Amino acid sequence: MTIYNFSAGPAVLPKSVLELAQRELLDYQGSGMSVLELSHRQKEFDEIIKAAEHLLRELMAIPDNYKVLFLQGGASTQFTTIPLNLAAGKTAYYVESGSWGKKAYSEAKKLSEALGTFEVKLLATSADKNYAELPEVNPAAIDQDAAYVHITTNNTIEGTAWYKLPDTNGVPLVADMSSNIMSVRYNVEDFALIYAGAQKNIGPAGVTVVIIHEDFLNDTPTLSAMLDYKIQADNDSLYNTPPTFSIYIAKLVFEWVKTLGGVDEVERLNSEKANLLYTAIDNSKLFTSPVKREDRSLNNIPFVTPTKELDALFNREADDAGFKNLKGHRSVGGMRASIYNAFPLQGVLDLVEFMAAFEKKYQA
Amino acid sequence: MTIYNFSAGPAVLPKSVLELAQRELLDYQGSGMSVLELSHRQKEFDEIIKAAEHLLRELMAIPDNYKVLFLQGGASTQFTTIPLNLAAGKTAYYVESGSWGKKAYSEAKKLSEALGTFEVKLLATSADKNYAELPEVNPAAIDQDAAYVHITTNNTIEGTAWYKLPDTNGVPLVADMSSNIMSVRYNVEDFALIYAGAQKNIGPAGVTVVIIHEDFLNDTPTLSAMLDYKIQADNDSLYNTPPTFSIYIAKLVFEWVKTLGGVDEVERLNSEKANLLYTAIDNSKLFTSPVKREDRSLNNIPFVTPTKELDALFNREADDAGFKNLKGHRSVGGMRASIYNAFPLQGVLDLVEFMAAFEKKYQA
Repeated sequence: MTIYNFSAGPAVLPKSVLELAQRELLDYQGSGMSVLELSHRQKEFDEIIKAAEHLLRELMAIPDNYKVLFLQGGASTQFTTIPLNLAAGKTAYYVESGSWGKKAYSEAKKLSEALGTFEVKLLATSADKNYAELPEVNPAAIDQDAAYVHITTNNTIEGTAWYKLPDTNGVPLVADMSSNIMSVRYNVEDFALIYAGAQKNIGPAGVTVVIIHEDFLNDTPTLSAMLDYKIQADNDSLYNTPPTFSIYIAKLVFEWVKTLGGVDEVERLNSEKANLLYTAIDNSKLFTSPVKREDRSLNNIPFVTPTKELDALFNREADDAGFKNLKGHRSVGGMRASIYNAFPLQGVLDLVEFMAAFEKKYQA
Repeated sequence: MTIYNFSAGPAVLPKSVLELAQRELLDYQGSGMSVLELSHRQKEFDEIIKAAEHLLRELMAIPDNYKVLFLQGGASTQFTTIPLNLAAGKTAYYVESGSWGKKAYSEAKKLSEALGTFEVKLLATSADKNYAELPEVNPAAIDQDAAYVHITTNNTIEGTAWYKLPDTNGVPLVADMSSNIMSVRYNVEDFALIYAGAQKNIGPAGVTVVIIHEDFLNDTPTLSAMLDYKIQADNDSLYNTPPTFSIYIAKLVFEWVKTLGGVDEVERLNSEKANLLYTAIDNSKLFTSPVKREDRSLNNIPFVTPTKELDALFNREADDAGFKNLKGHRSVGGMRASIYNAFPLQGVLDLVEFMAAFEKKYQA
């Protein structure tokens, strides 16, 4: 039985990446050591992290006046690090288009209350619509002296995405791009800071990419060296021991994206996969999408049947048939197909066929 | 040529662990997925993290009223998390027996200055002796109402270790055990909190183990969920996506330690390796140890020749002969053999032989 892994993250990786990692796991390029055993100060690892940065700069067209950092702690740690470094003495605005944006906002709020050195404001939310669509952003409501406006480019749990960026009245944009970085084309120069947990489109859990415009590096030290972009940038992400193996796998994934034709080609493939599934859902009499059509994500596609019982049955039968991790997030239920860069087209074709057969069986 | 990796971390891993990881890298136990692809919410990973915790509890004899956490960010992040969670309204004392203890102290100090909610005091330091010995701790200088006394059980860079714990006048002990956790026997009940970056004796970089007595979990939320022991403990280290692959490798290393006979047997083997090398150094007319005899570490063994030129020559020739990462930390120079649990006895025997040959060649 072929296994298709629809996990929202950690998620499926390119087979060729796993095969290469397997081949060199005991002896990295004749060093006599596993990648897992390399000191982060030795030549071999230095080459890995430099190549990873170089490839990401090339793939995303990151200008020279942006720093690329490989950090730990996931996007959740960035929820604190961002206001700590960028908001001092100012106001930070948050756009809440999903559960993760809500967490980003509440963590910033918590920090603001503890420190009292900056303000946090909720600019827009679609909580009242269960985040099934993107909220309206009113640029006139944004103070031009604000530190930044924070958005979540892709809402992993709810299945919406910002492909057209909101007008922020000239205020710098900060984006959690965890679930669609390198999956669709964004213009890096539209952002002051981009961050992403790696475990969706970049690869392994345990590393977080931060892309920050040099002008936004803090002038004065923050309360913690590990939460200090300036210190991390000055040390080329080697202030302390980095997650070496995760960075190595990320580098292999970047090479794979490049071989595939880069981000634009990957976006084309992702659109093809997503369209197949959306068309199947829209043409179905059993399955529906809870998400507003024009806000739909290419990466995370939730769908439901008319009843919870039928959702549960579908999830059980799909799992038995090799479609793994299709169950919707515990906060929303139903189903969710996460189809990131490495998810194969054939898996979507097979899922669509399986859904049609299920519909035929239970719709009668 | 046999390669021996004396890296201070990330460091050598057991061969059998790497071989097993390699075998199942493409298909974890018939799941059809790589461990790298497992969702942290799926059964297979749940079993991995539970087994890792269970094994660590068994190996270190961790009582039930301690929580075991698998976090990100290295020991360096704990330098902030510990005072943030444990020090509120009190004084935290720091014993500075090496470069890492100094960083722990200065990060706590920085946080105290930013928040103004607790005090930080330097209890003892051996900075004036270049940390070549442990400082004296005067229990009478410790306020019994203090939050904790922080020590570094093994000083990775300077090569000293606390095998007999200092008298803290009844104040709870907090220990950075990064470089000798599971390598020698400590009584967990002597500590309020133990923490360790994994990349020395536990295995892969990217995961940090925290062992905390339940009574020291914070009652009120801290300024960041990711830096909040209570939240991490309540979520069984799954508040956000954990470093899944690093936890998997750690689990395999724990199994390996158990198969070897547990921590006491590992300590016996480590003593044997260290004694071989210390005896060779002490009997040499060329090599000397800069470290006070009674404070010597079993895990990190620095040594020097009479000149920097000869140190450089030794490092070059040793590297050419397959003894890798022997160069001392850039802050101290000379040589340093890091011989953690997975470092083979044969590697020490070969190094001792190589040192004798080098001495014969250049001492004449």
